[in-house]
Amino acid sequence: MSFVASLEPEAERIWDAIHDHPMVQGIGDGSLEEVPFRYWVRQDYYYLIEYNRVFAYGAARAPDLARIERFADLLSETVSTEMDLHRSYAAEFGISEAELEDTDPSPTTRAYTDFLVRIAATGGFGELIAALLPCMWGFNETGRRLADAGLPEHEGYAAWIEMYSGEEFAELAEWCKDLMDEMAADAGEAGRERYREAFLTSARYEYRFWDAAWHEEEWTI
Amino acid sequence: MSFVASLEPEAERIWDAIHDHPMVQGIGDGSLEEVPFRYWVRQDYYYLIEYNRVFAYGAARAPDLARIERFADLLSETVSTEMDLHRSYAAEFGISEAELEDTDPSPTTRAYTDFLVRIAATGGFGELIAALLPCMWGFNETGRRLADAGLPEHEGYAAWIEMYSGEEFAELAEWCKDLMDEMAADAGEAGRERYREAFLTSARYEYRFWDAAWHEEEWTI
Amino acid sequence: MSFVASLEPEAERIWDAIHDHPMVQGIGDGSLEEVPFRYWVRQDYYYLIEYNRVFAYGAARAPDLARIERFADLLSETVSTEMDLHRSYAAEFGISEAELEDTDPSPTTRAYTDFLVRIAATGGFGELIAALLPCMWGFNETGRRLADAGLPEHEGYAAWIEMYSGEEFAELAEWCKDLMDEMAADAGEAGRERYREAFLTSARYEYRFWDAAWHEEEWTI
Amino acid sequence: MSFVASLEPEAERIWDAIHDHPMVQGIGDGSLEEVPFRYWVRQDYYYLIEYNRVFAYGAARAPDLARIERFADLLSETVSTEMDLHRSYAAEFGISEAELEDTDPSPTTRAYTDFLVRIAATGGFGELIAALLPCMWGFNETGRRLADAGLPEHEGYAAWIEMYSGEEFAELAEWCKDLMDEMAADAGEAGRERYREAFLTSARYEYRFWDAAWHEEEWTI
Repeated sequence: MSFVASLEPEAERIWDAIHDHPMVQGIGDGSLEEVPFRYWVRQDYYYLIEYNRVFAYGAARAPDLARIERFADLLSETVSTEMDLHRSYAAEFGISEAELEDTDPSPTTRAYTDFLVRIAATGGFGELIAALLPCMWGFNETGRRLADAGLPEHEGYAAWIEMYSGEEFAELAEWCKDLMDEMAADAGEAGRERYREAFLTSARYEYRFWDAAWHEEEWTI
Repeated sequence: MSFVASLEPEAERIWDAIHDHPMVQGIGDGSLEEVPFRYWVRQDYYYLIEYNRVFAYGAARAPDLARIERFADLLSETVSTEMDLHRSYAAEFGISEAELEDTDPSPTTRAYTDFLVRIAATGGFGELIAALLPCMWGFNETGRRLADAGLPEHEGYAAWIEMYSGEEFAELAEWCKDLMDEMAADAGEAGRERYREAFLTSARYEYRFWDAAWHEEEWTI
Repeated sequence: MSFVASLEPEAERIWDAIHDHPMVQGIGDGSLEEVPFRYWVRQDYYYLIEYNRVFAYGAARAPDLARIERFADLLSETVSTEMDLHRSYAAEFGISEAELEDTDPSPTTRAYTDFLVRIAATGGFGELIAALLPCMWGFNETGRRLADAGLPEHEGYAAWIEMYSGEEFAELAEWCKDLMDEMAADAGEAGRERYREAFLTSARYEYRFWDAAWHEEEWTI
Repeated sequence: MSFVASLEPEAERIWDAIHDHPMVQGIGDGSLEEVPFRYWVRQDYYYLIEYNRVFAYGAARAPDLARIERFADLLSETVSTEMDLHRSYAAEFGISEAELEDTDPSPTTRAYTDFLVRIAATGGFGELIAALLPCMWGFNETGRRLADAGLPEHEGYAAWIEMYSGEEFAELAEWCKDLMDEMAADAGEAGRERYREAFLTSARYEYRFWDAAWHEEEWTI
C-alpha cells in the first residue's frame, strides 16, 4: 500500500467532516450567507501570502534542480495568477484589494500558517510536502464532492466549486500525492511517522479554517 | 522612552486580563480545582520542550560569543534543572513522567509553540527576543501580583507563586527586557514594528494558554 | 552618504582586481583560452542552481507581499530563462547539458555558495541582500568596463560582455543597490556592520571565483 | 555492513593524508614550528565558536527530548569547558584571549564553517550528524595514531595528542558514529547519499584545515 493510500482513512474522516460542515454545505447548495464567506475570502488571502512562502521554502530546500524548477513554478503561479484571481473573485463579493491587504490573521489562520512555515523552514523536504498535501487534496476532494451534487445557482459559489473541482486543481493534488509517495518511499519508519503527523495536523487545520470562518473567529484579547 | 517602556500599555492590558482570569485567581486564593491545573502542567511540559528549541535557536543565531554563551546557559538550565523541577512538581499532582511525555499539544499550545519556533528559526535575532519576552515578563508579573496578595494555603499553588515571583525569575525577566531594549536601539522603525508584533502575538498567546487550560481545550477533530 | 556609496571604496578595489585579472582581460580582448572559460561556464552553472535557492529564500523571508513577488519573479526568471540561456551558451562552447549537470563544485564554488545559502537561510533579510549585491554589481561593472573598451572579435566573449553590460543587467544591479540602501536605512549600526561584512565576503568570492577558473582549481583530496 | 563501516574506505584515505601531513607529523615528533601551530590554534578558536552553533542547531532541530538534552550538553560543554581549555592552551603558546577573539577566519575556516552551519540550518538532522562526524572521528583517529607512536618531548604537542587520543574524546567519536548509524538506518537511499556527501565534504575540509595552517593561508584580496 502506498504511503498516501495509508493516509486515506484519516483523510476521509476529515474530508467527511469538512463536507458536512455548514460552510461547505452552504456553498454547495448556494444558501451560505455572504458574511462568513467574505470572512473566509479575506482569511484565505492572508493564507495565500504565507502559502507562497511555503513554495519558496520548497524551492530553496529542494534536493535537485528539477524540483527547484517545479516549486519555482508553483510559487510564480500562486503569487501572480492565483492571487490575481483571488483579488478579482474577492471584488465580486465587494472586498477591495486594500481590505484584503489589511486583513489580520485570525487565531486559526495564524496557527495554520505558522505551522506550515515552521515545517517548511525547519523540517525535512518530505515533511514540507506532507504539510502541503491536505490543502491540495482536501480542496480538490471538497470541490469534487460538491460538483458531483450539482452546481448551485449562486454564481460566486458555483465558480468556487468549478475551480477546486477542475482539471488543473486535480492535477495539482495528484502531483502532490505522487511526490509524497516518492518521499515516503525513501524514508524510514521515523520519517514516515513525522510525515503522517504533519499531514494530520494540516488536515485538522483545513477543517478548523472552515469552522473559524463559520464562527467569524476573532482574537478575544 | 525605551522600547520596552513603549510596550507597557499593551502589556499591562494583557497582564491584567491574565491576572483576572479564573485560573490565575484560583491559584492565587488556592480555590482552583486540580483538574484544569493538571491540564496546565501537562501542556506546560510540552511547551518547555519547544522552549528549549527557542533557546537553542538563540544560541545558533546569536550575533556574538557572549550571547551564544548566554543562550547556551539558558538552554542548559531549562533542559536539565527546570524540566526536572517540572517533573517533580507534576509528580506532586499525581502526573507521572510517562504522562508528561505522552501529552499531545492542545490547539493553543501547538499554535503558540509553532509561532515561537517559526520566529526563532526565520525571524531576526531581535524578533526571537521579542517573542520570548512575554513568557518571562508575564509570568514574573503574574507571580509578583499573586505574591503581593499573600500566598494561599494550597502548598502546590503557593510553591508555584513563589517560583515565578522569586528573585531568579525576576532577574531573567529583567535580562530579557534589557536585551530587547538593546536590540530595539539598533533597529529601525520597520524592525521595531516587527518586534512589537512578535511581542503582542506571544503576549496574546500567554492569555490564551491559561484560557485553554481553563476550558480543557481539545482538538475537535 | 548612502550605505551603498559607503561601500564603494572597498567595492572599487575589488572590481579593479577583477578587471585586471587575466581571465577578465582575456575575455575583453578575446585572447582567453577556452579551457579555463569552459571551466568557468560549468562552475557558473552550479552557482546558478544555488543562486536560485538564494532568491527562493528571499521570497520565503521577505517582509511583505511586494517583495515576495519581486523575489518570486527573480527566481522564476533565473530558473527558467537565465538557466536556459546558460545551457545554450554552454552548448556553443561544446558543453552538453549532461556535463553541466554533472559538474561538481570546486572548493571556491562550494565555499561561495555555502556562504550565500547560509546567510540567506540564517541571516536577516538585509544580510541576504548584502550577500547578493556583489554578484549583480560586480558583473555589471565588469561588463560595462569591458564594453567601454570595445567588443572582442570572439563571438562568445562578445556576447558575454553584451549580456552583463546590457540594460537589463544594469537595472538588476540598480534595483539591488536601492534595496540595499532601503534595508540599511532601517538598520542600526550593528546591522549595517553585518551588511558590510556580508557584502565584502561575497565581493571577495567574486574575485576568487575568477581566480579559481584561471587555475582550474580542483579538490586536492 | 553499517553505514559508518561503509564510509571507512573514504575516511581512511583522508585520515591517512592527514596523518602524513607535515603539520601532524610535526606535532607527533615535536618538530613543528610554533608559527603555523599558533595559526592553527587561532583558526581553531574561530571554528569552535561556529561549532557551538552546529550543536545549537542540533538541539533546536533534534527529533526528541533525549536528543535535545544531548545536544544541549554538547553545546554547554563546548561553549564553557572546551573553549576555556582552548584559551588556557592558547595562552601557553603566547596567544592572548584578545588575539583569539580578533582572529578573522581564513578562507578555508570560513568555507568549512559556512558549510557546517548551512547543513545544520537547512539539511535534515541526519545530514547535520554526517557533517559533524569527520571532526570527531578524524581528530580521534589522528590523536590515537600519534599516541601509538609515542608522545613527543614538546609539552604542548604532547598535551594536544593526549587530549584527542583520550577516553573522553574517543567516547564522543563513538557516540557520533552510533548516532550516524541510527540515522542512516531510518533513511532511504537518497537520504544516505546526502549523508555520504556531507560526511565526505567535512572530511575533506578536515584535511584542508591542516593544510591552510601549514601554508598560513590568507585572503589574497
